[in-house]
Amino acid sequence: MPAYHAPLRDFDFVLNELFNVQQTLKTLPGYEDMDSETLASYLEAAATFCENELQPLNRLGDEQGCQFDPTDHSVTTPEGFAAAYRQYCELGFPALDCDPQYGGLGMPKILAFPAMEMLCSSNVAWSMYPGLSHGAYAAIHAHGTAEQKNHYLPKLVDGSYTGTMCLTEPHCGTDLGLLKTKAEPNGDGSFAITGTKIFISAGEHDMADNIVHLVLARLPDAPKDVKGISLFIVPKYHDDGSRNEVFCGSLEHKMGIRANATAVLNFEGARGYLLGEPNKGLSCMFTMMNAARLGCGMQGLGLGEASYQGALAYAKERLQMRALNGAKAPDKAADPIIVHPDVRRMLLSQKAYTEAGRALTTFLALQLDIEEKHPDAEARKTAADLVALLTPVAKAFMTDNGFAGTNMGMQVLGGHGYIREWGMEQLVRDCRIAQIYEGTNGIQALDLLARKVLADQGQKLRQFSSLIQQFCKEAQARAELAEFVGPLTQLMKDVGEVSVKIGMAAMQDKDEVGAAATDYLRLIGHLTYAWLWARMAAVSLDHEDDFHKGKIATARFYFAKLLPETQGLLAQLKNGAKPLMKDADLALL
Amino acid sequence: MPAYHAPLRDFDFVLNELFNVQQTLKTLPGYEDMDSETLASYLEAAATFCENELQPLNRLGDEQGCQFDPTDHSVTTPEGFAAAYRQYCELGFPALDCDPQYGGLGMPKILAFPAMEMLCSSNVAWSMYPGLSHGAYAAIHAHGTAEQKNHYLPKLVDGSYTGTMCLTEPHCGTDLGLLKTKAEPNGDGSFAITGTKIFISAGEHDMADNIVHLVLARLPDAPKDVKGISLFIVPKYHDDGSRNEVFCGSLEHKMGIRANATAVLNFEGARGYLLGEPNKGLSCMFTMMNAARLGCGMQGLGLGEASYQGALAYAKERLQMRALNGAKAPDKAADPIIVHPDVRRMLLSQKAYTEAGRALTTFLALQLDIEEKHPDAEARKTAADLVALLTPVAKAFMTDNGFAGTNMGMQVLGGHGYIREWGMEQLVRDCRIAQIYEGTNGIQALDLLARKVLADQGQKLRQFSSLIQQFCKEAQARAELAEFVGPLTQLMKDVGEVSVKIGMAAMQDKDEVGAAATDYLRLIGHLTYAWLWARMAAVSLDHEDDFHKGKIATARFYFAKLLPETQGLLAQLKNGAKPLMKDADLALL
Repeated sequence: MPAYHAPLRDFDFVLNELFNVQQTLKTLPGYEDMDSETLASYLEAAATFCENELQPLNRLGDEQGCQFDPTDHSVTTPEGFAAAYRQYCELGFPALDCDPQYGGLGMPKILAFPAMEMLCSSNVAWSMYPGLSHGAYAAIHAHGTAEQKNHYLPKLVDGSYTGTMCLTEPHCGTDLGLLKTKAEPNGDGSFAITGTKIFISAGEHDMADNIVHLVLARLPDAPKDVKGISLFIVPKYHDDGSRNEVFCGSLEHKMGIRANATAVLNFEGARGYLLGEPNKGLSCMFTMMNAARLGCGMQGLGLGEASYQGALAYAKERLQMRALNGAKAPDKAADPIIVHPDVRRMLLSQKAYTEAGRALTTFLALQLDIEEKHPDAEARKTAADLVALLTPVAKAFMTDNGFAGTNMGMQVLGGHGYIREWGMEQLVRDCRIAQIYEGTNGIQALDLLARKVLADQGQKLRQFSSLIQQFCKEAQARAELAEFVGPLTQLMKDVGEVSVKIGMAAMQDKDEVGAAATDYLRLIGHLTYAWLWARMAAVSLDHEDDFHKGKIATARFYFAKLLPETQGLLAQLKNGAKPLMKDADLALL
Repeated sequence: MPAYHAPLRDFDFVLNELFNVQQTLKTLPGYEDMDSETLASYLEAAATFCENELQPLNRLGDEQGCQFDPTDHSVTTPEGFAAAYRQYCELGFPALDCDPQYGGLGMPKILAFPAMEMLCSSNVAWSMYPGLSHGAYAAIHAHGTAEQKNHYLPKLVDGSYTGTMCLTEPHCGTDLGLLKTKAEPNGDGSFAITGTKIFISAGEHDMADNIVHLVLARLPDAPKDVKGISLFIVPKYHDDGSRNEVFCGSLEHKMGIRANATAVLNFEGARGYLLGEPNKGLSCMFTMMNAARLGCGMQGLGLGEASYQGALAYAKERLQMRALNGAKAPDKAADPIIVHPDVRRMLLSQKAYTEAGRALTTFLALQLDIEEKHPDAEARKTAADLVALLTPVAKAFMTDNGFAGTNMGMQVLGGHGYIREWGMEQLVRDCRIAQIYEGTNGIQALDLLARKVLADQGQKLRQFSSLIQQFCKEAQARAELAEFVGPLTQLMKDVGEVSVKIGMAAMQDKDEVGAAATDYLRLIGHLTYAWLWARMAAVSLDHEDDFHKGKIATARFYFAKLLPETQGLLAQLKNGAKPLMKDADLALL
């Protein structure tokens, strides 16, 4: 398994140099006094825990997986997982960005997100147990009654309870309108929940005292489509310690994240409590889903970082062939493979995607903090709009790049990359699910193009573009930035044109939206990364040290070797839906 | 596991309609009388075996893997593997394209290649046991003494012996110049081979009477680099049935192809016999390597086909959401997901890459048959040059597309794709190795650009281009082909220009070659597929049936949605080596 070193220097760069978060925090009530030393000390504590406790369990977790015992429906997590979770709780990490009213530490997202990245890098399967809990915390915090909040939140905040999201059923994942699980009133205000849920991450385990399942189900006589779905809190154990009628039926055998218990859950008249209003379950669940989607993107980022570190270390050590321009290490039997251009291409691609992803998630964390805390309603709205626009981009673009990145990292190791003991192929397998769950990347693309861009006639997109334009305008004064600002400006123009074109075409034929979505999301992803890399170059230009010079070199690499993908995407988009649709029926017999 | 149906209709199309192989076979001594019925009957027999015997063992093989017993160094293959191998031998398949002088059936490669594709689709891990044997057969056939040939070839041809290729050592894979295994003369004409070889596919098993290891090793006082490597035949058992001193030390734990025994082999003074001339081992081994590289490309193709079939069947069955333009199956709870543009994009991508790959391998098989049998030396040379140029393209482009394709197939299944029981993720894991072994795809790219294109000042490339030009010229007469011929002509022009540019740049700086290689190979891959899709469209235009109309639709999809990738590749190539090399040193600290 490759060693993992938390990228604390880069967190510092992104937080303090790129986004100057102190300045924003000062304007947010509750965060005014959060100095950079406090943030740094938390990040260091998280780094220590991830490097020393979680990462060493990662490969073992993959090998052992979770064990299901059908006699008592129990699940045993891999060795060390429960102990690490206890330690995590003792250190107070579940409380990090939770509400102090319920025992939380009240820290901003710009701290929680880097911590989450480190968890994903060191042990993504483990990270999902507390990750899902945080989703449950957020949903109950947003939609629960005072009683529900007082009852559940302190337990989720101290980690003694964990949470789940129970959406999927055997016949429906994307299309929740089809869901069948029933909720029948018990007469005492509670409901009897009956149905089967599948793919429930952290659905059953031995790490906490109780599990709070958040379950989508239908009330009697509810409308048949998505408008008839309600959300329920279904605890594994009742308050008196007796078992609720919800049981793990089996665990899935998966390609990766094998140490996470992905459960089939059978609700057999389990007692549940309505969360939020009847028939509004889906919008309540989206409180969790949006956070989960960002968390998912973070998995792509964290796994990409771990793979980059493993590949970089190997490329410096492994001796194989001579540099094409003559020996670089003539005293050795061969040169380290990092001298070879194609190996460097893979490493730099990993690095460029990872560091831009880190900048994007930090940008989004800051917007989330503004959305939650800013005294000015307009500022909150602007931040919320940016988060809405960029959440599907973060989820899909970061997981696609994470998958590409972990594969490149594995490729750097050659045959050894394919061998389990090296740990590089596990990162690939663990990353693969992130392109699928929490809404497949195809669904993210539709969300972006249909709901976030076209539904408001491009208003959110223009808002984002104006941020980019503002940067370009300021940057024009500096000739050394022209190499970045030029292509960025051109891409913004191209994106504007193609967005209008798709919008026009969609008025004639809605399939134009579905046909364009995936290419379009990748295009917006590159627009975002080009903007972030240009900004990172801009703040690095005034420094002469290796770190900042390396940033500029990575920015140049990104513009030279990754951004040109947009040329192909634009050409594909120009060709529209026709080659996919009716004409192709005979190709898909 | 998805069901597999051998694509016999498409084999027929490629062999008889696209390439009209009968016409060529008539000119090749030994193949003159090979009619299309004979070819078809062999293909049907292979299809029956693959569908009914091999495919049902595929998932079981992945779950069980191979078992190593350290007490006697033995390896047990998964249940049913040995029995299937016996049946394969009884059916005469190992002999298919082997020399009748040694018991072979003397069939052409244009028959052997489709058979190999079917083996790869149905059970790629199993297919490697006979696959490696064929490599050993080819090397001994090309370089062995009459005695060696008489001794080993009949056993390899009847399948009672299998073969291996022993190249890699712990400290060297790509860079064989570093290899350390020693060969010391025993004084009786034989040699004592001592050293450790790793990653030896089919290195030890329970399927055959004997295993013939072909081993690279150094004679005493041999030059230290690649010019000091010789090739040896090292049988597992001596002729008297006693054990040779070569033992399996362990099996690797791998991401995929888990049913293939990837062995560490310890040679402890094992008796070996020189094959070919001293110190010429590497060029002898390349007889096997080139075939192995095509076989590797075939794995990408076969796995892509299997994944396409699984995804297509699922997409027709799975009901989820309504078509954006209104319900297509209003009588059902939802529409089958094949109505959604993004699902169609994935399916059509799989199909377009797979069918072009099938055309490419058949084209290469035909060139190999010409190279071997044509009475005219110039015709043989032309064919050999085309094979040399396109072998690295077939290996890398087909395995990269196979990996992309198996991932798309898995994505079509959503969460179910990630679950082992569905069998789709196994195809991804099994395919992943094909991008690495037999020379990583980065090494293929260097081989293409440096050795096959630049080393002869583009002569082989021009030869290939003239084939394309010839097609374009003929096709110009037909207006309906303009949509294909236009972009193909433009791409040929672009490829010519960028090749010259890289050649010029490389004279100043050899790193320009390494920096361009991977993008360049993908570009040549697309040039090849664009040519083949245009040809397939051309032969389909005169027909009005669904099969041929589907071909034209797939060609249009390829030109509209996959070929545009070349726009990005050309832009990346234009940016040269600089962003990767010295400038980036500080990015890779």
